[in-house]
Amino acid sequence: VGFGSVGRRFSELLGGAYGRRLRSAGWRVSVTAIATGRHGMAIDPRGLPLARCRRLVEAGGSLTSLHQGPPVSHTLELVRRAPADVVLEISPLEPRSGQPAIRHVRAALERGLSVITANKGPVAFARARLLALARRRGVGFLHEGAVMDGIPVFNLVERCLPGARVTGFRGVLNATTTRILACLEAGVGAEQALREVQAAGIAEADPGFDLDGWDAAVKACALAAALLGARVRPDAIPRRGIRGLDPERVVAARRRGRRIRLVAEARRRERGRAELRVGPRELPLDDVLASAPSDGVLVLETDLVGDVAIWQGRGGVDQTAYALFSDLMALLAGDGRRFPRG
Amino acid sequence: VGFGSVGRRFSELLGGAYGRRLRSAGWRVSVTAIATGRHGMAIDPRGLPLARCRRLVEAGGSLTSLHQGPPVSHTLELVRRAPADVVLEISPLEPRSGQPAIRHVRAALERGLSVITANKGPVAFARARLLALARRRGVGFLHEGAVMDGIPVFNLVERCLPGARVTGFRGVLNATTTRILACLEAGVGAEQALREVQAAGIAEADPGFDLDGWDAAVKACALAAALLGARVRPDAIPRRGIRGLDPERVVAARRRGRRIRLVAEARRRERGRAELRVGPRELPLDDVLASAPSDGVLVLETDLVGDVAIWQGRGGVDQTAYALFSDLMALLAGDGRRFPRG
Repeated sequence: VGFGSVGRRFSELLGGAYGRRLRSAGWRVSVTAIATGRHGMAIDPRGLPLARCRRLVEAGGSLTSLHQGPPVSHTLELVRRAPADVVLEISPLEPRSGQPAIRHVRAALERGLSVITANKGPVAFARARLLALARRRGVGFLHEGAVMDGIPVFNLVERCLPGARVTGFRGVLNATTTRILACLEAGVGAEQALREVQAAGIAEADPGFDLDGWDAAVKACALAAALLGARVRPDAIPRRGIRGLDPERVVAARRRGRRIRLVAEARRRERGRAELRVGPRELPLDDVLASAPSDGVLVLETDLVGDVAIWQGRGGVDQTAYALFSDLMALLAGDGRRFPRG
Repeated sequence: VGFGSVGRRFSELLGGAYGRRLRSAGWRVSVTAIATGRHGMAIDPRGLPLARCRRLVEAGGSLTSLHQGPPVSHTLELVRRAPADVVLEISPLEPRSGQPAIRHVRAALERGLSVITANKGPVAFARARLLALARRRGVGFLHEGAVMDGIPVFNLVERCLPGARVTGFRGVLNATTTRILACLEAGVGAEQALREVQAAGIAEADPGFDLDGWDAAVKACALAAALLGARVRPDAIPRRGIRGLDPERVVAARRRGRRIRLVAEARRRERGRAELRVGPRELPLDDVLASAPSDGVLVLETDLVGDVAIWQGRGGVDQTAYALFSDLMALLAGDGRRFPRG
């Protein structure tokens, strides 16, 4: 569900070295349905020709010519009808509501299909409900790509820190603001900085969600849901972005050997509650949150292991496509007993 | 095998919140045998009284009074006779040979017992052989604590980066030299710096293995074995420590906004080979390897995910004890079908 740059890159991985790694682990994966918003949709139980799908979409065409069987007109209908074991949800997100991704995930889980998503919305707004539904149906709901692309964040805690208690976290989770702040440090003006980051394909055409700290807030809520077991709504947390930040302040901090970053912080409170906030913070240059070049850093505060950080160099489409792949590998390795080996 | 500060702390964890987490996962763990070098050894199939064992050893006494059954006089004999499912190998290490830890691990695996170790020796010198033996016997050989204490390094790659190819790494793996260099940066003299780090319980009484880069080299070889599939002997890699380093150079670097750290580097080469080296490197202050305060950082270079770093705040006995715990949880969760639930 969704065949933008991440979905297309994932489909390339299946045809290359990563697909060979799946096959050498005994799995054969085929894509039997694709839904897009502006390029039609197609179901083919024998597996869609992925290179042709990519060429069609990249040329502005439609997938509908590849469709087999009774016509399908709506993404939810495709999710309900596609012959599949796993649904990848990577549709464009309305970040204030988490829709339509949440509807797609729910429809798939209700059918007893496992879901892998790189969308932060379903995690931030509905993780507990969706996970409960997945458990009732005996299927998986994995979402490593929702925060920091393919860098393990959720899986790190679940698979590598068993029994440890996360008591809070501090993260630089939004690459757009980090890159803009780095430009400002170098003396580039605010508008020029934004244009440079947009040209690099990092910032959205409408960067408001990044600049106002909304993206960081949604990611913080996704992390709080998974790591602290807390349901917090993004619009309920104190949030400041970098839009009003004086570029002079950024330059002055750098001159003092310090650096400003947009930091999301969370602290576990009693009875399943958590305290979150998002805002610009001035950090020592050798703080791991300030290290560079980096598109994401998350410091986990734990009860016994102390502070543990996971750090991402450059992020992008490759990393998010890998997140889908790694969740798929985990699904097949863990819950995979249900799936026939090819 | 080994009941020093890490073993005793681990035994405390079993009696506290971490033991409760094991029990709530359905497991009941008891310690049926302990071997020490200078405080005797004891086997008790019904489980040893751990608080009493700690008090005895901390008072300089012997565990032998707690022993049940025919006398046992040698650690290897205890490993061969102890009624157990899992052996924890945390004996003092001879870092130039990896012994006697390797002998203990082999004896346990040959008996069909799983092994968890925090010793880098068996990993650096014999990982491939020991893992092959473990597989033949159908048991586990886990060693998360061998590098960076309880911070997931080996498990991170195995469990959270499935299918990704590690092409090399850069790491600051030795806490003693990092702390000494931090003292030197602050203008403390070399001898005073060493005394401070020893007083903090970080450096060994004989810090030669740290200062000469030997500890970092052994850890680099352990990582190369696990992450790059390369067998490299620590004495075969170019290695410089910080012993001959002019403190003035450290201060001067800091004045220029840079920082010197002892860095271990590895690059994957063709046909199962790897190129490793250890030496002081001057880093930008905002390099993740130079971030502070930290007792360990490892940057993994991968084929698709780019650079991923795992970072440790303060390390120590708690963290290493947790490494044993996390490996035990993983063993029970993964290979645990063999173990009866308590």
